[in-house]
Amino acid sequence: MTTSNRKVLISEVGPRDGLQSISSVMPTAAKLRWISALAAAGLKEIEVGSFVPPKLLPQMADIREVVRHARSIPGLHVAVLAPNLQGAQSAFEAGVHKITLPVSVTDEHSMANIRKTTGQMIEEVRDIVALRDERFQGVQIEAGVSVAFGCTIAGFVSDDQTMQMCLAMAECGVDEIGLSDTSGYANPAQVRRMFRRLQAEVGDKAGGAHFHNTRGQGLANVVAALDAGVTTIDSSQAGLGGCPYAPGATGNIVTEDLAFLLEAMGYDTGVDIDRLIAARTILAEALTGEALYGHVQDAGLPRGFTYANGRAPSAPQPEGCLLGVAQ
Amino acid sequence: MTTSNRKVLISEVGPRDGLQSISSVMPTAAKLRWISALAAAGLKEIEVGSFVPPKLLPQMADIREVVRHARSIPGLHVAVLAPNLQGAQSAFEAGVHKITLPVSVTDEHSMANIRKTTGQMIEEVRDIVALRDERFQGVQIEAGVSVAFGCTIAGFVSDDQTMQMCLAMAECGVDEIGLSDTSGYANPAQVRRMFRRLQAEVGDKAGGAHFHNTRGQGLANVVAALDAGVTTIDSSQAGLGGCPYAPGATGNIVTEDLAFLLEAMGYDTGVDIDRLIAARTILAEALTGEALYGHVQDAGLPRGFTYANGRAPSAPQPEGCLLGVAQ
Repeated sequence: MTTSNRKVLISEVGPRDGLQSISSVMPTAAKLRWISALAAAGLKEIEVGSFVPPKLLPQMADIREVVRHARSIPGLHVAVLAPNLQGAQSAFEAGVHKITLPVSVTDEHSMANIRKTTGQMIEEVRDIVALRDERFQGVQIEAGVSVAFGCTIAGFVSDDQTMQMCLAMAECGVDEIGLSDTSGYANPAQVRRMFRRLQAEVGDKAGGAHFHNTRGQGLANVVAALDAGVTTIDSSQAGLGGCPYAPGATGNIVTEDLAFLLEAMGYDTGVDIDRLIAARTILAEALTGEALYGHVQDAGLPRGFTYANGRAPSAPQPEGCLLGVAQ
Repeated sequence: MTTSNRKVLISEVGPRDGLQSISSVMPTAAKLRWISALAAAGLKEIEVGSFVPPKLLPQMADIREVVRHARSIPGLHVAVLAPNLQGAQSAFEAGVHKITLPVSVTDEHSMANIRKTTGQMIEEVRDIVALRDERFQGVQIEAGVSVAFGCTIAGFVSDDQTMQMCLAMAECGVDEIGLSDTSGYANPAQVRRMFRRLQAEVGDKAGGAHFHNTRGQGLANVVAALDAGVTTIDSSQAGLGGCPYAPGATGNIVTEDLAFLLEAMGYDTGVDIDRLIAARTILAEALTGEALYGHVQDAGLPRGFTYANGRAPSAPQPEGCLLGVAQ
């Protein structure tokens, strides 16, 4: 039983990426309880919502109240998504610690997603950084480079195309540049190659990995990202989200399963998996009928499991299962 | 678009490990149709069942008929599981190409699984190899080393404990020694370490990886196994199987998602994913009410996807999905 000094930050995006991708609108009171429970389970950064017009995304109409609540949680790093200057300004004024800007690699996705070409979005990012530098110093800006591994509209995306956008973002002055597999196109060989190149090209501005589990490859891609030295991974509780046109095509990677992967591999996340699993009940009660994903909540932690820092789980281990003749 | 000469063998274990782990008994006619469809989708090795007493596993009562059918499929490598000398002899007589022997690392699991201590099982393996050498030369024998990464009954299993059993199997004269994560205990760091050590200890007798997806870590562990040079991976269509005491705790890793992972990474498997997905309908019809898992069958192949050998998919790509403000 060795303990580990390697740390990985799990950035929980369920309240943003999960809730925006389902038709139900989570009541504000439940949202606040959920965010508190996630933080109490040891998650240190939570993307709590988006600053977008409520008529576009009614799920996010309560974003100011949500940010106010999240900021009251001691030690929590409060992140939001903002698609444009207006949203970013509102986010700055609300007192967030970090904003993520969705920047598509392809014009096709960029137009469909935020009604701007990639060139127009680069200008917008420049303006957002200028505003931050002038009036909101200290707020962290991350470019979330979308469809970095392939595009549902344009199809194939080359490594060079993605890196060109990453370099443009570095030149704009963002603090961090993360790579997003928006629709589950990435494979581990590509992930390893791309994050290594990102570090080579933008140095300490190289940011985290944002994987969707659309094709079940999310944790496989995490292994590759870890190999490449990535230390921040986005995920959402219960893998909330997905695509209504493809039932079963899940949302982000599942935080519960990710936390187990990381801790089992010896990466300290600070997360208590049993407390994290307990937080699912808030989701299940507030979002009746929405699909909740993941495995660890059903299987429990293995017998003899210890966290990366050496502590034992808080809940007892489940009984083993033996059927037929096992291999 | 580069083509690849790297090949990985997917060894399909659904008709054995999947069907033994569910309560439904698949009608023989459907089983034969299913095996034919799997082979037609390009799977080159299928574990078609177990030679065990029908009163223990009624799902396998038709094993002789199933083997006869499988042997009639040109080019198919027909594998079965046999837990003891009697089963192995029946398997040899039925004309299988390969038998897998389930050999537990812990006495606790060994007794619960096959009512033999590990020492008794080593003797049994020795007898099975002697019988093969005497009367059934050319039939391949694999030791499937179970609970190699941790045990649902005994808990923690040390690397040394597992390697000791692997060395005993090499000494018995089996052809291949594979490592099985019987209950989803393995993590990628452990998988990489253990397969590298297996190769160092038993050389070209080092065999494949058999992972259960109990905690959603299956494909993550595959990435680690590939890093370690493993070239045979077991999986089952639709991840059939699991544990009735832990609903949602799935069975083997899903062949559809595995084939996508491998092909996307540039490993040629020979599998046509669309044809593989089509074979699920046989399962869905014959096993009403059983949970079928996987992602690729819902999400489809990505736009612009090509197989490792350069060919394009046989089915058209699905439409993209865009909701909220995507990252």
